[in-house]
Amino acid sequence: MVILGIDPGTATTGYGLIKVPEDILGRKFDYDLDLIHYDNISTPKDRIAQERLLMIYNQLNLVIEKYQPDMIVIEMLFFGANTKTAIAVGQARGVVMLAAAQHNIPVHEYTGLQVKLMVAGSGRADKKQVYEGVRKFLGSNGEKRSVLVAPKGGHLDDATDALAIAICHVLKMAAA
Amino acid sequence: MVILGIDPGTATTGYGLIKVPEDILGRKFDYDLDLIHYDNISTPKDRIAQERLLMIYNQLNLVIEKYQPDMIVIEMLFFGANTKTAIAVGQARGVVMLAAAQHNIPVHEYTGLQVKLMVAGSGRADKKQVYEGVRKFLGSNGEKRSVLVAPKGGHLDDATDALAIAICHVLKMAAA
Repeated sequence: MVILGIDPGTATTGYGLIKVPEDILGRKFDYDLDLIHYDNISTPKDRIAQERLLMIYNQLNLVIEKYQPDMIVIEMLFFGANTKTAIAVGQARGVVMLAAAQHNIPVHEYTGLQVKLMVAGSGRADKKQVYEGVRKFLGSNGEKRSVLVAPKGGHLDDATDALAIAICHVLKMAAA
Repeated sequence: MVILGIDPGTATTGYGLIKVPEDILGRKFDYDLDLIHYDNISTPKDRIAQERLLMIYNQLNLVIEKYQPDMIVIEMLFFGANTKTAIAVGQARGVVMLAAAQHNIPVHEYTGLQVKLMVAGSGRADKKQVYEGVRKFLGSNGEKRSVLVAPKGGHLDDATDALAIAICHVLKMAAA
């Protein structure tokens, strides 16, 4: 089963793909997660919003067609964000959800708090702790995977967050 | 020149199309606006968000392909809206902006305040006053057009707001 985690944003949409055994549901969880790929979809600042959304949509479609994910997991924005941010994130979420619907891929959502809690062990985990949590879960037999490197020309944070969201969903499924 | 005004929302996306002379720019404005069509894109409450966004996107594409608008005008959400509303409106805006980008149609935005001020003469205009403003501008020679009727199974408000947004942009162009 291939899971695509996405951290949507107009400037940078991070994404990460992991592979889990089909029978993960109810199974004793053993860190057996394969990292397939992670990257950022970055859009130039000087482009207008609709062009940037089109870039995100087109690149995301390529990712979906290449890796054929069985489910998509995205972050749910916390309530209390300012309107400008919420609108911008909402627009990026809109094209992500549209691409998911067009490919008949179910979408799951978790708050940042849930992701931090499940992947890094604390709702107050910082970026470094989330990163270490992601490395731990993607390592074989509980060993840490070698350092994740930042995507070309982009930040590692967004891709790490996307992987963390995907892992959060796996933990949720395994615990169900 | 055909102008498509859109009031985006997950439950109801109102839209309205008007036709204006090509040489409207800088011309003395004489209420010479033709109403082409107005309607709502309504999505069922019991469907999940991504399916509703897909419905909006698909129906909007049919409208764009049928009426070939030269520009799209959408409402800019006021800052201070709550996060949940902002995200939901943002998602609907995202698929609208994507459809516009895919058809190479420029997008213009106005705040609700600007629309009310320009179409109804006051930033504090209520729905009835916006409605009367829309009727006035769509009438011939300043005469009121006969009553606009609510789209089948939907509210008139969203379609009226969409027409008001389109008219706001015409007034702005004529005043330029």
